[in-house]
Amino acid sequence: MKIFIIGIGLIGGSFAKDIKRLRPEAKIYGIDANPAHEEEALTLGIIDVKSSYDELDIADMVIVMVPVDAMVVELPKILDAVNDDCVVFDGGSTKGLVCKTVADHPKRRNYLSAHPIAGTEFSGPSAAIENLYAGKTNIICEVEKTAFKLQEKALDLFHEMGMRICYMNPEAHDKHIAYVSHLSHISSFMLGKTVIEKEKNERDIFDMAGSGFESTVRLAKSSPAMWTPIFKHNKDNVLDTLNEYIQNLQEFKQLLENDDYEGIYNEMNDTNRIKEILKGIPLNK
Amino acid sequence: MKIFIIGIGLIGGSFAKDIKRLRPEAKIYGIDANPAHEEEALTLGIIDVKSSYDELDIADMVIVMVPVDAMVVELPKILDAVNDDCVVFDGGSTKGLVCKTVADHPKRRNYLSAHPIAGTEFSGPSAAIENLYAGKTNIICEVEKTAFKLQEKALDLFHEMGMRICYMNPEAHDKHIAYVSHLSHISSFMLGKTVIEKEKNERDIFDMAGSGFESTVRLAKSSPAMWTPIFKHNKDNVLDTLNEYIQNLQEFKQLLENDDYEGIYNEMNDTNRIKEILKGIPLNK
Repeated sequence: MKIFIIGIGLIGGSFAKDIKRLRPEAKIYGIDANPAHEEEALTLGIIDVKSSYDELDIADMVIVMVPVDAMVVELPKILDAVNDDCVVFDGGSTKGLVCKTVADHPKRRNYLSAHPIAGTEFSGPSAAIENLYAGKTNIICEVEKTAFKLQEKALDLFHEMGMRICYMNPEAHDKHIAYVSHLSHISSFMLGKTVIEKEKNERDIFDMAGSGFESTVRLAKSSPAMWTPIFKHNKDNVLDTLNEYIQNLQEFKQLLENDDYEGIYNEMNDTNRIKEILKGIPLNK
Repeated sequence: MKIFIIGIGLIGGSFAKDIKRLRPEAKIYGIDANPAHEEEALTLGIIDVKSSYDELDIADMVIVMVPVDAMVVELPKILDAVNDDCVVFDGGSTKGLVCKTVADHPKRRNYLSAHPIAGTEFSGPSAAIENLYAGKTNIICEVEKTAFKLQEKALDLFHEMGMRICYMNPEAHDKHIAYVSHLSHISSFMLGKTVIEKEKNERDIFDMAGSGFESTVRLAKSSPAMWTPIFKHNKDNVLDTLNEYIQNLQEFKQLLENDDYEGIYNEMNDTNRIKEILKGIPLNK
């Protein structure tokens, strides 16, 4: 089996590692816009050979793990180049614009729209992790638009990797993911910004920071090159979540200004329900 | 050595566990407003005996780990009851009002004002962890107001427990801790609230949540009974941090509304400096 991975960073590289373990007979062809990443992936043994779009016609499977702004440019070209029996799937964090971009492509049936919910705040081939996807949710959009045999080819791999599959339309995906993922990143980046700005002249102050601060600002380490296009693609939904978040912060501030400590207690007590909800998040316990 | 621990939850209980290991000859007397906690701490072997304020006169050391609203009520009574050679220290998350409350107490020299920066989002005796404090920072305020011999008695224990000591005045403590701790808790609680409110009718949606969401809302599991009085004690500083945080979120929202993606990229890129800063946080790597 000839598997091409386009974009060999944390996400693409982690796919490669699982495939090498589960399908030792497969040959992994790597393509990355950054030649240094291709070289690194080869040295680390994540890919078997460096490749290019010219070879895409021999691919049985193409895994596209590039930022969503590159996705909408590259995906049509990739579909142009593959053969009729090749399945192409992506891992983009927004699905609406990506699905729309290829909606009328003559090879739409070769494409499966996916979003595996997994990752860390690190990036590049050296950040790739074996078994990253075990127990994680993979959201599949518009599954009915993919040829049946090609759905099967991709889903067999997902199941072997231990992923939970969840079907959803692109609009619902983009709306809900804004709450459970995109907003977390903004809250974390802005928390980091607020503290860095305030404490820029007092470096020792971070000696006072504990694991709580570390946990809430962890996502502020994330890649701006990946996240800027996500916010662009999902602008309207992200603005909705931001408005609601800012509104809740302002209400909390108002309670504090009014010395309404019963109100503050109740806000926190109600939100403690998150304990039960987090127990339901698969394998992140 | 007779050591009294008042408040035998996560923080007090973790002190007890370290003392049992480091000072096997010490006898640990436990006092808690909640009789169930006293009983549980005894059953778990965290304390040796249940006790009461009537016995405080025999104490060599009293460790007070109660919410800061209880602290300002209890600390003067505790100081009233102890003998002249007893050191009393606390672990309250705000220091200004606590120090002010005992400033003119006839036994002020028996009190050492401390804030060990350690903990988890859990609470109660069963949440106590051995070695919780190793490598963590313990902030000491107004050290010069404590009798020299009694400073030494407490600091010997802190050093044996592996804590890093940092001296600071109560005003600076309360200002900086608002940024690196109190704001993180509010951002996390309000993030949890925003998502729970939005998704209350769609429980499956949390299947979409990954480890990023879990990390940013972790602190929303924290105890309202502990945190409400902290926000009350540190109201002015917390309001400052909240104003700046809301302002930064509004500016980010404005950039997104204006489609200023270069601006958004730069905001995130600048805040990526948090990577270097977090490397400096002791033992939370």
